[in-house]
Amino acid sequence: MTEDQVETAAETVSEEDDNYVLSPKTVAAILYAVDVQDRERLIELMEPLHAADIADMLEQINAFDRLRLIKLYDREFDGEILSELDESIREEVISILNPEVLADAVRELDSDDVVDLLEDLEEGDREAILDVLEDSDRIAVQQSLTYPEYSAGRLMQREVVMAPEHWNVGEAIDYLRDQDDLPDQFYHIIMVDPRLRPVGKIALGKLMASRREVLLDSIKDDSFHVIPVTRDEGDVAYAFNQYHLISAPVVDETERLVGVITIDDAMAVLDEEHEEDILRLAGVGEESSLSDTIIETTKKRIPWLVVNLGTAALAATVIAQFEDTIAALVALAVLMPIVASMGGNAGTQSLTVAVRALATRDLTGSNAFRVIRREMFVGLLNGLILAVPLAMVTALLFGSPLLGFVIGVALIINLFVAALSGVGIPILLEKLGVDPALASGVFVTTVTDVIGFFAFLGLATVILL
Amino acid sequence: MTEDQVETAAETVSEEDDNYVLSPKTVAAILYAVDVQDRERLIELMEPLHAADIADMLEQINAFDRLRLIKLYDREFDGEILSELDESIREEVISILNPEVLADAVRELDSDDVVDLLEDLEEGDREAILDVLEDSDRIAVQQSLTYPEYSAGRLMQREVVMAPEHWNVGEAIDYLRDQDDLPDQFYHIIMVDPRLRPVGKIALGKLMASRREVLLDSIKDDSFHVIPVTRDEGDVAYAFNQYHLISAPVVDETERLVGVITIDDAMAVLDEEHEEDILRLAGVGEESSLSDTIIETTKKRIPWLVVNLGTAALAATVIAQFEDTIAALVALAVLMPIVASMGGNAGTQSLTVAVRALATRDLTGSNAFRVIRREMFVGLLNGLILAVPLAMVTALLFGSPLLGFVIGVALIINLFVAALSGVGIPILLEKLGVDPALASGVFVTTVTDVIGFFAFLGLATVILL
Repeated sequence: MTEDQVETAAETVSEEDDNYVLSPKTVAAILYAVDVQDRERLIELMEPLHAADIADMLEQINAFDRLRLIKLYDREFDGEILSELDESIREEVISILNPEVLADAVRELDSDDVVDLLEDLEEGDREAILDVLEDSDRIAVQQSLTYPEYSAGRLMQREVVMAPEHWNVGEAIDYLRDQDDLPDQFYHIIMVDPRLRPVGKIALGKLMASRREVLLDSIKDDSFHVIPVTRDEGDVAYAFNQYHLISAPVVDETERLVGVITIDDAMAVLDEEHEEDILRLAGVGEESSLSDTIIETTKKRIPWLVVNLGTAALAATVIAQFEDTIAALVALAVLMPIVASMGGNAGTQSLTVAVRALATRDLTGSNAFRVIRREMFVGLLNGLILAVPLAMVTALLFGSPLLGFVIGVALIINLFVAALSGVGIPILLEKLGVDPALASGVFVTTVTDVIGFFAFLGLATVILL
Repeated sequence: MTEDQVETAAETVSEEDDNYVLSPKTVAAILYAVDVQDRERLIELMEPLHAADIADMLEQINAFDRLRLIKLYDREFDGEILSELDESIREEVISILNPEVLADAVRELDSDDVVDLLEDLEEGDREAILDVLEDSDRIAVQQSLTYPEYSAGRLMQREVVMAPEHWNVGEAIDYLRDQDDLPDQFYHIIMVDPRLRPVGKIALGKLMASRREVLLDSIKDDSFHVIPVTRDEGDVAYAFNQYHLISAPVVDETERLVGVITIDDAMAVLDEEHEEDILRLAGVGEESSLSDTIIETTKKRIPWLVVNLGTAALAATVIAQFEDTIAALVALAVLMPIVASMGGNAGTQSLTVAVRALATRDLTGSNAFRVIRREMFVGLLNGLILAVPLAMVTALLFGSPLLGFVIGVALIINLFVAALSGVGIPILLEKLGVDPALASGVFVTTVTDVIGFFAFLGLATVILL
């Protein structure tokens, strides 16, 4: 992810009203160039675009246009574009690319980007790409692939700028000036002891501003985070966000420095984690993408709908117990979805707050009890506030104060239960080691449906019949 | 947000099993020290904690403990903690702090952090804090406060390292070494023309690695993003994430350099925007916080519940039209929530994918039509797949193939409508300039409830009676 390749994207951006978005006009012009097979015009139009925007465009157009565009663009295709592409169409694009173009594209990338590219590919494609790399790069990439998926080891780049701990500023600067192949981006020098264990880091700005004879040790950051190579990438992103890190050294099990993670990669992980959370909460396969086909999308969404069919059937079973009551008073059938629906919404509110707070580690063992208690009171208060108008309107419309009383009490019960289960279930799942975003929704709406129908129809049976 | 102040947080972290999370044990020990008023022990326990963790802890404990802890901690209270605190309790903490401690704390902060602190305070508190700042800082902060809320101007820090475009590496390095008050963090030197307009930037690493006589112009980044001071912070965060920026210059309307935004601030904005999206989708006031009181929480959540009460009443009205049908066949009351509930879930799936894709700008004018068409087919396919078993089970259990047919067809209709409205409504809202995350949920569930009940009961009336 080199910033150098941000070729003149600023110009394109400033021309557009809707900041930074690839304009539909540009996309249309590009597709026209493809239609008329005007390679020069295509290159002219694509040249000012950032690789990330080109990748976005490739995701937005259809597979046929994608094929023709890539064939026409040919040798201009840049490695950056590959690493910016969504996984869902990356394999397709790789299979379209001329092998020589692919080889050139891959060779341009940093080791962490090559790893990112390879980890989602089939074995065969993977080998083909590894073969085109230079020996040293290939070994680095293969080493990274031995670390678990979603670990710091996969995220880090292996190009590290380090200096012995006893050096002074002058020695560090001279060393940097002698290096031919410094990484594209680095912001700190990592100080290491003789066994290559990181012992501190120095911001480049501080190094620049210090006199040659100053010892590195005296200007190192007061503290720094060392990340074990096996740490989960979500935890890494959390640490970067929480402690405002810009880069952090990664160490293996012997505490030797093996790489460095920079904040731009952590930011990308944070963004992915958010995507996962929001999609999981909605019961959508978390690797969903807009470029998925109809069949793929259906496959990803149907499991949750099947589960929901089961829980809806459970709720229906509850209603079935009260068939006689409903037959005696059809108004109950009219009103009962109100109680269930309100419970579902209140439960989703509590649930979302709890899932988000667990993800950001704002909800912990220290405050779980207080948060649960607060939700219970909020549920009760919401119930009381909403039950009164609902009861009154029901009593008036149906001419039955008792029916109003029944729906009011049922609403209070269900909002209380909704709040309690909305916060309690994700906390419980977290304790059991299950991702709360993944499974809480089913449980909470099942609870609010079942309790909603049961409380309303049960009370009606007891009080009204 | 200086990294220097990350005092030995690494040590604390590595001691804990659950990475980076403030351990409940530590919190308990701290609260015990507060209970027994043991100031030395408190300081000893707090010393290794990062300001962000201290802020998290203050958010997690109750108001009474917070008061006593802050009083006991007294002069040790650091400015960083203030800027890490959630807005919901920041004002409370400021009012507890001894004015001298507050003054010291604020003076330590960078201008962007002071702005962040001030923007949520009441006029009176704001003046009090401005008064303690040095003149130059106060003017800088007041200037920033003239920019619109949530704009780049509020986000940027005013401390910028710049160099005339004609300098060479040696001049730049000498200049940096002469400076006494370089910002805590900077990663690029911004090159400016004689009218102080940014014309390029140079990564410090590149500067370090270049010979003294090399012209800055020849080693500047190929491109760079210039951010107008009025640009929305969400757009700024998007640009950082999309183009892997580490820092970017901010310019005023005359294109003069007025500040710089760094990626750690952009990352914080990205995180907040995600929080807003997920909370808005769930109908929770987006500034919700776990430290809100019961009353505050209820106030934030009830508006959406009131809206939901209205839409549930609308759905009930639909059912009321079919009272006679239900009275004739009570099984319909048992089964009707299944159709509505499935529609609600399928609608939420489409909705969440669409809202997320709009937020990440993956869903644009170029592919909106294709995405809508895909969702419609997915909805139809999901409907067909799920309708068959539902119809068969219903036919068997209720001994009525016709009833099975009715619920099957109603389900197909509702899942199709759910998919269409789930993606169509947010796109429409976006076009109208309304945040799709805020209002889509109401519309979509209203549609699926109304259509679900209407299709099922309507078909039943026509076919079964």
